Amino acid sequence: MYTIGIDVGGTTTKVGLVDKQGKVIQRALVITTNYPVISDYINALHEVIQLLITEAGGKDKIKGIGAGVPNGNYYTGEIVLAPNLPWKGVVPFGKMLSEQTGMPCKITNDANAAALGEMTYGAARGMKDFIMITLGTGVGSGIVANGQLIYGHDGFAGELGHVTVKPRGRLCGCGRRGCLETYASATGVVRSAMEMLSKNSTPSILRQLSPEEITSQKICDAAIQGDEVALKVFRFTGKILGEAFANFVAFSSPEAIVLFGGLTRAGNLLLDPLRESMEKNLLPIWQGQIRLLVSQLPESDAAIMGAASLI
Amino acid sequence: MYTIGIDVGGTTTKVGLVDKQGKVIQRALVITTNYPVISDYINALHEVIQLLITEAGGKDKIKGIGAGVPNGNYYTGEIVLAPNLPWKGVVPFGKMLSEQTGMPCKITNDANAAALGEMTYGAARGMKDFIMITLGTGVGSGIVANGQLIYGHDGFAGELGHVTVKPRGRLCGCGRRGCLETYASATGVVRSAMEMLSKNSTPSILRQLSPEEITSQKICDAAIQGDEVALKVFRFTGKILGEAFANFVAFSSPEAIVLFGGLTRAGNLLLDPLRESMEKNLLPIWQGQIRLLVSQLPESDAAIMGAASLI
Repeated sequence: MYTIGIDVGGTTTKVGLVDKQGKVIQRALVITTNYPVISDYINALHEVIQLLITEAGGKDKIKGIGAGVPNGNYYTGEIVLAPNLPWKGVVPFGKMLSEQTGMPCKITNDANAAALGEMTYGAARGMKDFIMITLGTGVGSGIVANGQLIYGHDGFAGELGHVTVKPRGRLCGCGRRGCLETYASATGVVRSAMEMLSKNSTPSILRQLSPEEITSQKICDAAIQGDEVALKVFRFTGKILGEAFANFVAFSSPEAIVLFGGLTRAGNLLLDPLRESMEKNLLPIWQGQIRLLVSQLPESDAAIMGAASLI
Repeated sequence: MYTIGIDVGGTTTKVGLVDKQGKVIQRALVITTNYPVISDYINALHEVIQLLITEAGGKDKIKGIGAGVPNGNYYTGEIVLAPNLPWKGVVPFGKMLSEQTGMPCKITNDANAAALGEMTYGAARGMKDFIMITLGTGVGSGIVANGQLIYGHDGFAGELGHVTVKPRGRLCGCGRRGCLETYASATGVVRSAMEMLSKNSTPSILRQLSPEEITSQKICDAAIQGDEVALKVFRFTGKILGEAFANFVAFSSPEAIVLFGGLTRAGNLLLDPLRESMEKNLLPIWQGQIRLLVSQLPESDAAIMGAASLI
């Protein structure tokens, strides 16, 4: 028997076939998330799912579908007011996908799915208390305490991308200002780079690019090549993340914070300033006690595997 | 059978005899917490406990002792680096009290004890997800998620008095700056009043008092009488608490935040600006959804009853 795991990101959606052992059995299929009309997106997902059903040897070999979706609600199966997705308002995603495919479908938020994946197969194996932070288009989080995901009274717990880190700071997709994700996401990093490039005239290879060409990947590449502005962007990002993490630790005292997503490609260029900032801001009882880990699972597999484990 | 419940506060310690139904059977006995030497304090506690043993009809009528202590650790029984207690470093409180009394002794932090009390007998009865915030000498917190207290990997979870709310803000007893408790505790409120009195010349009945005489109770009384400076202190305190609470909600999405402690005497003078600030800072999905409650249990009984329930 197999399960289908779906990782819905702000830009792309990855769909994989997961076996009984929880492994994604081959490279996940990818479609864009950018369908302005949700029913078109569900149709596109359905087509990909059909391919996987064929691969599995028929529909009776599939137990169901689990999906990790930004702002996805485990209790209701809805996507609610997701700032980084094309569909506004409340979308009955689980119900639509279940009706379209004729299979049971459970959803949770994308970072919760990644946390489930890490807890079962990844960097957080055996841990009862950890926080998963996804640094993608947005910043997501999945919080595990006492060995369980924290869903909160309404299924929406763990929106750590939307803690306020700078009052009157950058405008966020959620309508408020100064959210962590306006600084520490892929898009936040681009905003930081643009600000730094416009505020001074430090030479930078990023200046050879048009504003539209500057992406977090390009900034990451530039930093790896030693570009001064790009390095400063990661120091700034690490500092803000570290300050936020110190507050998260005061909440649930996790054994580790596990990082996941595109920005972690910067490696120690991000992790060193992050760790320094976190340690500086931690209460003395926690200094030197909290592990900072990067997901070791193949890219996107954590979320697909975690989502599949919902079924 | 009875249990002895102890509520260790920064200033006073309350000790009560709790019956099988979890009720404190008569007014709790009170001693000062301010013994510079821990063994003197344990001796003083022991004397009070002897009185309660006599009242209960002998030692064989007592199952054990539960204590809620600032920075108390459920796993180890130790008090660790408590900024608001006279004893520095690590104090093996549970072991000392158990040896002195010859009875089993369990401890947890004071706010966790209050949360257990509220969950079993108080404003949070039947709730699976809520946050208890104690506004006393310091600011403490107990976080309940999925119906369980969150202890974290080391027993220290829930130090929400030490989230940073103002980078480079007021110096805290923990050695860092800008912690929530430097603004929203009884001592924080006094600091706010002193700042406001020194910064302008608004008439205030607080000006009739010497600086040493200004306490949070006096400020509270002044606010109830309509004193402009005192009212401004509570508006300022409410604003900061509301901003912090919005971030707490993003973490665990509680059904309610339950307030407890001396500052809640200010009632709506504190709660109105707090609610307004929290609502303004919440993500849209939570606006109007999170209840703000004040403990309905007799003063200090929540912590005593919660502490007793550890046994």
